[in-house]
Amino acid sequence: MDLLKVLQVDELAHGLANFSMFPYFDLAHYIVSVILLFAGALEVSRVSPLACWFSSMLFCFGGAVLSGIMLAEPPVAPLSNGTSVLLATIVWYLVFYCPGDLLYCCSALLPLRLVLSGMKEVTRTWKVLGGVTQAHKKYKDSLLVMIAIGWARGAGGGLISKFEQLVRGVWQPETNELLKMTYPTKITLIGAVLFALQQTQYLPVQKHHLMLVYTVFLVANKVSETASRMMLTGSSASPFAPIESIIYKTLFIGSSPYAALTDDLQDSCTDRDASASSGDRGPVKKRTAASQNNGKNGSLQAKDQPENADTGRSKKSD
Amino acid sequence: MDLLKVLQVDELAHGLANFSMFPYFDLAHYIVSVILLFAGALEVSRVSPLACWFSSMLFCFGGAVLSGIMLAEPPVAPLSNGTSVLLATIVWYLVFYCPGDLLYCCSALLPLRLVLSGMKEVTRTWKVLGGVTQAHKKYKDSLLVMIAIGWARGAGGGLISKFEQLVRGVWQPETNELLKMTYPTKITLIGAVLFALQQTQYLPVQKHHLMLVYTVFLVANKVSETASRMMLTGSSASPFAPIESIIYKTLFIGSSPYAALTDDLQDSCTDRDASASSGDRGPVKKRTAASQNNGKNGSLQAKDQPENADTGRSKKSD
Amino acid sequence: MDLLKVLQVDELAHGLANFSMFPYFDLAHYIVSVILLFAGALEVSRVSPLACWFSSMLFCFGGAVLSGIMLAEPPVAPLSNGTSVLLATIVWYLVFYCPGDLLYCCSALLPLRLVLSGMKEVTRTWKVLGGVTQAHKKYKDSLLVMIAIGWARGAGGGLISKFEQLVRGVWQPETNELLKMTYPTKITLIGAVLFALQQTQYLPVQKHHLMLVYTVFLVANKVSETASRMMLTGSSASPFAPIESIIYKTLFIGSSPYAALTDDLQDSCTDRDASASSGDRGPVKKRTAASQNNGKNGSLQAKDQPENADTGRSKKSD
Repeated sequence: MDLLKVLQVDELAHGLANFSMFPYFDLAHYIVSVILLFAGALEVSRVSPLACWFSSMLFCFGGAVLSGIMLAEPPVAPLSNGTSVLLATIVWYLVFYCPGDLLYCCSALLPLRLVLSGMKEVTRTWKVLGGVTQAHKKYKDSLLVMIAIGWARGAGGGLISKFEQLVRGVWQPETNELLKMTYPTKITLIGAVLFALQQTQYLPVQKHHLMLVYTVFLVANKVSETASRMMLTGSSASPFAPIESIIYKTLFIGSSPYAALTDDLQDSCTDRDASASSGDRGPVKKRTAASQNNGKNGSLQAKDQPENADTGRSKKSD
Repeated sequence: MDLLKVLQVDELAHGLANFSMFPYFDLAHYIVSVILLFAGALEVSRVSPLACWFSSMLFCFGGAVLSGIMLAEPPVAPLSNGTSVLLATIVWYLVFYCPGDLLYCCSALLPLRLVLSGMKEVTRTWKVLGGVTQAHKKYKDSLLVMIAIGWARGAGGGLISKFEQLVRGVWQPETNELLKMTYPTKITLIGAVLFALQQTQYLPVQKHHLMLVYTVFLVANKVSETASRMMLTGSSASPFAPIESIIYKTLFIGSSPYAALTDDLQDSCTDRDASASSGDRGPVKKRTAASQNNGKNGSLQAKDQPENADTGRSKKSD
Repeated sequence: MDLLKVLQVDELAHGLANFSMFPYFDLAHYIVSVILLFAGALEVSRVSPLACWFSSMLFCFGGAVLSGIMLAEPPVAPLSNGTSVLLATIVWYLVFYCPGDLLYCCSALLPLRLVLSGMKEVTRTWKVLGGVTQAHKKYKDSLLVMIAIGWARGAGGGLISKFEQLVRGVWQPETNELLKMTYPTKITLIGAVLFALQQTQYLPVQKHHLMLVYTVFLVANKVSETASRMMLTGSSASPFAPIESIIYKTLFIGSSPYAALTDDLQDSCTDRDASASSGDRGPVKKRTAASQNNGKNGSLQAKDQPENADTGRSKKSD
């Protein structure tokens, strides 16, 4: 029985590894990405459709653009894949300009949203693996380069969000994905590390097995998070929080950054900020200020955190 | 007679296509570009000649730099053309540091300005075509890449103006060439589309004919615009305004962006801006401020219906 | 005797030219670079170790990253040199997280600081020469490209400090290394010009002689400057100030930029700013505002000028 089970899993893993992302999974990725942008870019979409389109493309193809720049390959390359761009453009048009916001409302329905979110996460595995493989071709032995490119490819939309925001005329330098990593960025980094270790054979696993495990983990996590957020509006504590907290307390003496992210540190920060000069523009101050205005600018936060921007909308559409 | 006329036009087009931009037309381009920079960079020219020179070079060679980055070719390449850089540097020096602002004053005379503006527009044709050809070498079939590179090459100075301003210590993130396209950017985009279509033979025209027509259109438009602006100080309505308005009303439901750009919306914007906080930097915060004025409306609803209510807008477009 | 002396200098120059920077000189470069970052990044190091690490790597490898981008070579390449990155990472960890700030305090001791500063300056010669040689391979005849790449390679950390600050959530667009060049940036530019002239044989010197002279000049200047700053806290007037002043007065008519940098021009600037339109956000205005707050935000200035950031700290550690 056990052997049979193993064989079936092996077959499943093989099947998954030979799976094509195009068109259905790519489509799900485009829909989820553009919908994440929707709340922040609605006004821009009326003023300048071109800027809105460009922003959407950066969300959809950000990973390829960023990893292209990092490897000195043309960042314009994603545009050369006409079919993907056409697909993403159609999604963009329907999300922003469809009468009655049809596509937007449909995709906000819980079951469809769960399916789309899950499918988008599947594309992440392929993208991270694509990045690691691409880097491996140029830099055979360099683990760090593989991790960097795999990460950039998988979490590109988030990492270049500063520049995507700039296209829309928004500029919030006080925070970024490195200062305050969102969950998708973290999980992509872990995936990049795993696939890079597998590629350099430090991790004695077969590639298709790792793909299966990582994909299942991604999808399960995303679906459960989305479901709990949409149904219970409960607090979505990161599954990494305890581990992170331990690592930080062990390695990076001083206050735990997890605590910092959950306002434990705020008092001391405020004190330090109060004594700082007026020209100071450090991240902590702005963060403190932002949280003090918390009641008022809920909408702003949704914009700051593109990967979570769907929260508010889904409530409305329920 | 007709045949003869056609033959002459054909000869003219051939002659134009074999025309060299160097040195006279390039010189005109450098003069007009540096003079455009003059007003904004006068103070910087006294504080740091190097930053001023770098800014000027970005204005003169911005297209080549931007298309280089987009195709992963060295952005430093324009510097390798010593003669052009020398010419541009001499122009820069004479404009900024010539006693009595001689070059600046001369080129502000109406006849000379008309000639220079016209000559600069001629270089645009060559640049757009150069960009499209360059992209065609790397990406044979990709219309979109050709358009993007042709556009970047022809309107580069405008598209990278954010970074050029940053060199001078100026930072205005709330607007950019994509959000609010200027006339040269628009006309260059149209040119890039036309030349890309010609290159892929979707447009059944010969290249030198298209070059002639596009150049004549550019020059005529520019000269008439410059003349009317300098003599009458009349309002320079874009020749594309009606077409744009129709396209936007048809495709992008909601208010015409042209209206948004030309003062229809301005009153309400000004009001809202006046009440915004001093730290306000761009559309997102403006919107937040607006929602604060809204009383206790849910901020999210305010986000969904910014600027103009969707309902009102669809009525208007009906 | 004279001949013998010449022979010895020649041997010394040859010995120096064949010297390897790895590991001791590179180590000194990493220590000095990370310590320069320390004051500005302390808070970030508690909030996000990853952003802090990335910032540190940009300080240590900024020149290679910048020259890579300028020559369309992968900016991620420095990561592929595992040993260097590991060394820099260990330094970063010890500086920021070592209990009792051991490494930081040790390296602030005058004799050790003199040695480290001197050794860091030695690496500058190698970097500038490396950049010039790298550019010479791609662009045989272009003096300007060689100067640009040599400069970028040698002073990269300073030139990309805007982006390094952005990683830490700090954004101060009103100044940059081109607008207000620091001493290391200037001396690197001069070095790049000299080595480029030598490479194109306009300067009839042998390479190893030039390396010796430039290195000795760099080290002597740095050591004397560091010593005078740490012991006397005297004003560190640039050795180029008189020459610069003459050049500016001759070539760039109007006020001398050196005067502008030392507040002579300030009154007129303030007047001009007061009469400027409200949309104006030029550098001079900000500079004036900054200098008005001068007494309060000394700490901030240390952050703006990474290459000088040790001033404040060294006082503290005395």
